[in-house]
Amino acid sequence: MAQKPSIPKGTRDFSSVEVSKRNYIFSIIKSNFEQFGFQPIETPTFENSETLMGKYGEEGDRLIFKILNSGDYLEKVDTQLLQEKNTKKLTSKISEKALRYDLTVPFARYVVQHQNELEFPFKRYQIQPVWRADRPQKGRFREFYQCDADVVGSNSLWQEVEFIQLYDTVFTQLGLKGVTIKINNRKILSGIAEVIGASDKLIDFTVALDKLDKIGEEGVKKEMLEKGISAQALEKVQPLFSFTGTINEKITKLEQLLQASSEGLKGVEELQFICNALSTLGLQTANFDLDVTLARGLNYYTGAIFEVAAPACVAMGSIGGGGRYDDLTGIFGLKNMSGVGISFGLDRIYLVLEDLGLFPEAVTTKPQALFLNFGQEEALYAMQSMVQLRHAGVRVELYPDASKLDKQFKYAEKKGIPYVVFVGDEELKNREFKVKNLASGEQKIVALAALTAMLSAN
Amino acid sequence: MAQKPSIPKGTRDFSSVEVSKRNYIFSIIKSNFEQFGFQPIETPTFENSETLMGKYGEEGDRLIFKILNSGDYLEKVDTQLLQEKNTKKLTSKISEKALRYDLTVPFARYVVQHQNELEFPFKRYQIQPVWRADRPQKGRFREFYQCDADVVGSNSLWQEVEFIQLYDTVFTQLGLKGVTIKINNRKILSGIAEVIGASDKLIDFTVALDKLDKIGEEGVKKEMLEKGISAQALEKVQPLFSFTGTINEKITKLEQLLQASSEGLKGVEELQFICNALSTLGLQTANFDLDVTLARGLNYYTGAIFEVAAPACVAMGSIGGGGRYDDLTGIFGLKNMSGVGISFGLDRIYLVLEDLGLFPEAVTTKPQALFLNFGQEEALYAMQSMVQLRHAGVRVELYPDASKLDKQFKYAEKKGIPYVVFVGDEELKNREFKVKNLASGEQKIVALAALTAMLSAN
Repeated sequence: MAQKPSIPKGTRDFSSVEVSKRNYIFSIIKSNFEQFGFQPIETPTFENSETLMGKYGEEGDRLIFKILNSGDYLEKVDTQLLQEKNTKKLTSKISEKALRYDLTVPFARYVVQHQNELEFPFKRYQIQPVWRADRPQKGRFREFYQCDADVVGSNSLWQEVEFIQLYDTVFTQLGLKGVTIKINNRKILSGIAEVIGASDKLIDFTVALDKLDKIGEEGVKKEMLEKGISAQALEKVQPLFSFTGTINEKITKLEQLLQASSEGLKGVEELQFICNALSTLGLQTANFDLDVTLARGLNYYTGAIFEVAAPACVAMGSIGGGGRYDDLTGIFGLKNMSGVGISFGLDRIYLVLEDLGLFPEAVTTKPQALFLNFGQEEALYAMQSMVQLRHAGVRVELYPDASKLDKQFKYAEKKGIPYVVFVGDEELKNREFKVKNLASGEQKIVALAALTAMLSAN
Repeated sequence: MAQKPSIPKGTRDFSSVEVSKRNYIFSIIKSNFEQFGFQPIETPTFENSETLMGKYGEEGDRLIFKILNSGDYLEKVDTQLLQEKNTKKLTSKISEKALRYDLTVPFARYVVQHQNELEFPFKRYQIQPVWRADRPQKGRFREFYQCDADVVGSNSLWQEVEFIQLYDTVFTQLGLKGVTIKINNRKILSGIAEVIGASDKLIDFTVALDKLDKIGEEGVKKEMLEKGISAQALEKVQPLFSFTGTINEKITKLEQLLQASSEGLKGVEELQFICNALSTLGLQTANFDLDVTLARGLNYYTGAIFEVAAPACVAMGSIGGGGRYDDLTGIFGLKNMSGVGISFGLDRIYLVLEDLGLFPEAVTTKPQALFLNFGQEEALYAMQSMVQLRHAGVRVELYPDASKLDKQFKYAEKKGIPYVVFVGDEELKNREFKVKNLASGEQKIVALAALTAMLSAN
């Protein structure tokens, strides 16, 4: 019996409309990456397991898809291990390769492996799929694209400034106005931890503070006390409970708050530099704000932390993020390479654009006209003119069979082709074309030059 | 100790120059697929194993990369099976998913799964990587791209005509003149088999005939006799040993030769139709020829068989191929869907273009100018003008640190950036820019408008 076809859970087929819409987003991100001086690299779909394992924590190790060795993969495996059914130990014996889990670790591996061919600071972008054996749910897939741009080899804060401009430019070009680019700095978080006298409570602290809007100051403080942060500590950071105003006002508040922490003050200074530059340079449509509760990838980032929130009118959360890390390539033996990078969340950006109707009409490249098929001789004449039209850059196709006209029309409609061209014996005799606009119903008889002009225009 | 980074054998990292060159080829193939009415789809990197297994023969099954199940994959496995180390039986118990091996089977699965959403004839193209656990060697990789266009749902021979035009158009646009598009027809091969009285010897026959250039008529005949083809049979197909002349002359010879085979004559008729159409329509730069030894995918194709040979001046062999298959989707339960398709061999096309120096200079999108960094104030002024330049579509970057000038210059040279822009205190004061063409050494002092015009032009 024939198999009922299906695909693995958490994966997706993409129709031509979906591919076109995704490519529209990719192409805007790509052209702006390039406009800011980033150049593309690509790395293999699978890496040696030791390149990936141990880089994403225990949870990550579990979620990495492993590839079974080819051939007789059990041959050299200890029978004892098999009898014990010791999956943990067995995996590394029967699987040497694993699917890419993100683009950052392969990038670090790439930089170290190719360091002698690269010019530093090295600015690369990479747009490729990654795979995670996560439980699939709405908006979370086992195969999805990441779109990353990173620079390694310089500590310059101009790079942070440029990444914020890059976010602004991309979202402006996508027509998505009013995103908020949130910034924070790991050093400010460390400073707060110093001030509250508990580095180990920093996550609890930021998680609680993030609820200020929902549960109010008293609720937040209650949660913090429960987590073991002292009342005295809370008093010291009291200004964070009314942390409003312009970004410059916020910076002033932080400066006072973090007097006792030199690391915290360093973070404020970095932030100040970025804000000053941006206030001179301006942003096109994005909002820019300081969010001291922003702590994504806390174990990883060492300086700036970025996150982009979709406009308030759509409930989507983060559509991008990134930050600075001081030692990305150290795991592969290349020390003291500071890096900073950002990422665009393709799937969420897609949903937001769809939600707000922001995809342009012309995003799919469907044929501009269908030539109807009236039989062999007529079709040959049609094909002759199609050769000319294609040379002129027009996308055209011939209905392959001389089927009933309503079937041919239905094909054009279903495919969203705007014009149909009739080449019957009358048209053939007069070397003309009858062309019909399917939306308006209007039809005209024209020569090839006029047909070319007409189709090129739409 | 840090790991020495490497990638799995048979896989590749692609540098930005390589990615750009590959994308140049992809974009020409893509735009022409679209100009001929094909629309893109994408399928997941991994499929359920039962979708792929058994579709490529025993050899194929072995070469498919299998993904280990997540979690405790041994839990439900029979201990007996483990003790026996029975790899063959075990694989399907511990692996449910496998990496895409080609684009054709996933396409067939897609068509059947989505048949109610599709409009037939369905014309799709697909450009995605595939994976094979083949022994890697020069020009053969374990991860490589396929670029396929197929139509399913019509028997019309106009489609064969269009595929030949499509090949011609793509190779013409790539500047690769003088490729030879070879055609054959499975029905002609069946006819020959009928005439020599041995369907089971057809492969031996075509393999031997293919050596005519190398070992001469006597050598070929000797080999055929050794393979058990009778002397009498060879007499019947004697014209194949001097199978030269124009394609029309060859067709005439075949027509006589295959008088006794109605299937053979049907094949000749199909070929005749395609040739007649093409002689009216013309080709731009490709040669078109009939090759009766062409038998690729013999078990698979049922009508036309295509193969494209690189120009004789490069030793590369086939850079594309395809054909018609009458029952692609039957394996998934959808009967009577005739299809025809072609494929472009990206890696080989890349090598040929490289060999012949056919990649355009401007294929990489490097920055058009590097702004030198003279310090904080100057850099801010530079960034202000860069905002304007980027709005005008110019790709520019700022060297992130105020390093020594020779270091900054070296960066521009290594990255192949054609212009550097100086913004020192003099330029800042006068609101001007000193711009230097690195190739010619020429330098000028200009205002922003002139700078924009200058950089846009290169």
